[in-house]
Amino acid sequence: MLLQDALHPSLSDPTLDVMNFLNEVALRFPEAISFAPGRPNEQFYDAQQITTYLDAYVRHLGQERGLDEARIRTNLFQYGRTNGHIHGLIARMLEKDEGIRAAPESIVVTVGCQEGMFISLRALFSTPSDVLLAGMPCYIGITGAAKLLGIDVVPVAEREEGLDLDDLEAKVEALRAEGKRPRALYLVADFANPSGRSLPLPARKRLLEIAARAEMLIIEDNPYGFFFREGPRKPTLKSLDDKGQVIYLGSFSKSAFPGLRVGYAVADQPVLGPSGTQHLLAEEFSKIKSMLTVNTSAICQAIVGGMLVMNDCSLLGANHEAIRFYQGNMDATLQALERHFPRSEDWARGVTWNVPDGGFFLVMKLPIEADEALLERSARHHQVIWTPMRYFYLGAGGEHELRLSCSYLTPAKIEEGVSRLASLIRAVMEERR
Amino acid sequence: MLLQDALHPSLSDPTLDVMNFLNEVALRFPEAISFAPGRPNEQFYDAQQITTYLDAYVRHLGQERGLDEARIRTNLFQYGRTNGHIHGLIARMLEKDEGIRAAPESIVVTVGCQEGMFISLRALFSTPSDVLLAGMPCYIGITGAAKLLGIDVVPVAEREEGLDLDDLEAKVEALRAEGKRPRALYLVADFANPSGRSLPLPARKRLLEIAARAEMLIIEDNPYGFFFREGPRKPTLKSLDDKGQVIYLGSFSKSAFPGLRVGYAVADQPVLGPSGTQHLLAEEFSKIKSMLTVNTSAICQAIVGGMLVMNDCSLLGANHEAIRFYQGNMDATLQALERHFPRSEDWARGVTWNVPDGGFFLVMKLPIEADEALLERSARHHQVIWTPMRYFYLGAGGEHELRLSCSYLTPAKIEEGVSRLASLIRAVMEERR
Repeated sequence: MLLQDALHPSLSDPTLDVMNFLNEVALRFPEAISFAPGRPNEQFYDAQQITTYLDAYVRHLGQERGLDEARIRTNLFQYGRTNGHIHGLIARMLEKDEGIRAAPESIVVTVGCQEGMFISLRALFSTPSDVLLAGMPCYIGITGAAKLLGIDVVPVAEREEGLDLDDLEAKVEALRAEGKRPRALYLVADFANPSGRSLPLPARKRLLEIAARAEMLIIEDNPYGFFFREGPRKPTLKSLDDKGQVIYLGSFSKSAFPGLRVGYAVADQPVLGPSGTQHLLAEEFSKIKSMLTVNTSAICQAIVGGMLVMNDCSLLGANHEAIRFYQGNMDATLQALERHFPRSEDWARGVTWNVPDGGFFLVMKLPIEADEALLERSARHHQVIWTPMRYFYLGAGGEHELRLSCSYLTPAKIEEGVSRLASLIRAVMEERR
Repeated sequence: MLLQDALHPSLSDPTLDVMNFLNEVALRFPEAISFAPGRPNEQFYDAQQITTYLDAYVRHLGQERGLDEARIRTNLFQYGRTNGHIHGLIARMLEKDEGIRAAPESIVVTVGCQEGMFISLRALFSTPSDVLLAGMPCYIGITGAAKLLGIDVVPVAEREEGLDLDDLEAKVEALRAEGKRPRALYLVADFANPSGRSLPLPARKRLLEIAARAEMLIIEDNPYGFFFREGPRKPTLKSLDDKGQVIYLGSFSKSAFPGLRVGYAVADQPVLGPSGTQHLLAEEFSKIKSMLTVNTSAICQAIVGGMLVMNDCSLLGANHEAIRFYQGNMDATLQALERHFPRSEDWARGVTWNVPDGGFFLVMKLPIEADEALLERSARHHQVIWTPMRYFYLGAGGEHELRLSCSYLTPAKIEEGVSRLASLIRAVMEERR
């Protein structure tokens, strides 16, 4: 018998339960309409695609890269280069789709974006005085990874218009005064999870200047950037980064599919070794990756590689239909909220929500607490599931807010789900009168 | 510009370079015969297998588990259960192939065995006084993972007949006297990497008793157990474990193929929570996995799942040909050594090697240093590559030893490679006369 208290302290931290909650809550109430999981919609998937993409990559290796059958077999089946074998295709994709110019050698193919976060944190944080800054509310994946490594996270306020840069500057200064080093800022600049917010272009430029002055890196995580509702898309921080401040994390979980677990990190910062020689941060990432997962599955890389070569290394065009679908779902959610929470009704008057420019998520504010008791009642008696926003705050915050994810549903389910949510809120509000 | 000194200290540790060396050395000298990589042979692989296995798993989900097309699509393409979806099939395999009875819920499907090691260490080690014991020489994957987490590793001596249990008991006692806690012992009981050694059956039983008395867990890593040269196979520690002392780590990299990156951990220990409730250690592993890789690729799990259902959940039979092939390669290596290092010759008299009962590796002892200078000369002038054993020791050790891996080659290449190795040693010895 092991004692919980004798296991690593992060395991007693509630943060680490939330990811499982998000993955598994839908299973508990299979009849409920769930606005909880940040999952892509499955209507674009077809089991036949796997073989089609694999075949395309095998043809690419043979015809364009001149590999014979034995070498192709090695590529697909064997252990391989730690940082991956589709880095060249990803570099071409980044230039076409994001205007990011990165040398293939600076790209690390990871087991989903999550591994990229973990590797970035392990590489950069060397002493207890190194601190991670993160806009609050914040994606659980980064705060959870920080807890596994015992890294302190300092929250920066987020406003409707994205990260509060005045607060960021104040926090950086305060940390320095305490003898701490603000080592990196984690940020989803486009359609953040959970808030749905984006950083305006002028703020992006100012943020890069702040980071350069503070000698602080930015870990830019961009899983949702394709899925704009109101264009034009804003340039990523990485595409504006002329001083090497940004480590860019990408994912194929939304632009291809999650079952692959393929993401990547662009770590093109030069590292000065003790002997005066220079190398890329990606090479340091490789050392860590070799002790976490050895490689990213060669088969999964080949499937992504096939998708890339079939689409001339641009996934933006290949996601045209998906982009329209998510635009439609976000519109449907916003329209259903307007319809089912009419301002003319007393019970609905205190209910508000933000209007994201894209992505999978929006946040509602309620005049009541959006806690687990309310979620339980919601799932059990109104057959609708959502995520309490307080899960995404370190310490206090989000007590009256909930996150709606509108990616996984259809417009008809969204309409029905929002109507059920309204019936829940109405019932609670009327009891409280 | 980042400074190496400001990155995590593990990145300046030579241990973390070795995995890349092992993965990439063959690329530096493509013409050389390489006894370096611990890779499976590729002659058993065929790109068509991927589709065959995937199809078999899809049929299994439909016909045996009654899933409709939409549910099957979710299984393959979507985020899924953190601990995986082929745990039931793996439980059946473990019972058939290893006599290990483990509840499916106690199995965590991991991104290769490496992720299982990392998760085990993160879960179990909570304070700086928790120490990991490991037989020396030792697989780099575990010592490297320990370095990433700042966990102290204490070496235990290994002899020809496997781990020295007297030394283990002495080390445990000494650690306790220092106020430290020997939290776990890492061990490959069968055909270890790098030594090729196995633990005799009576020693397995005594080891379990020692661990129980010391309240120390055993992390049993078993990637090579199938590949016996002299039978019968010994029972795994986990199959003898009646007190829940053993966390068992398995891999499909050798029984299926490495490009999948699928392994698993059996973590069936009960954990007592602060409120008095019990749960499985596997549930704690799940929290960590969700912050490292979220899931193991559903596609890769499906390929393994298909292989399992096509072979009635036994991979031992499915590996019959591979087992014979590796037996043949080890025999060929031993015979070539006898032939090319004749005891009648002065220069060869100080050269010895062990005779493993199976697996991929054996160790040679030389009368000269087997260092990187010798390796460079070997690769450049004699076109043969091997691995210096000192890479596998913490601190001193292995200076005059090298590892030969005979899995990846053919008997003809082995013959030629050993002959080249003999010409190297002979040349060096004759220069020194």
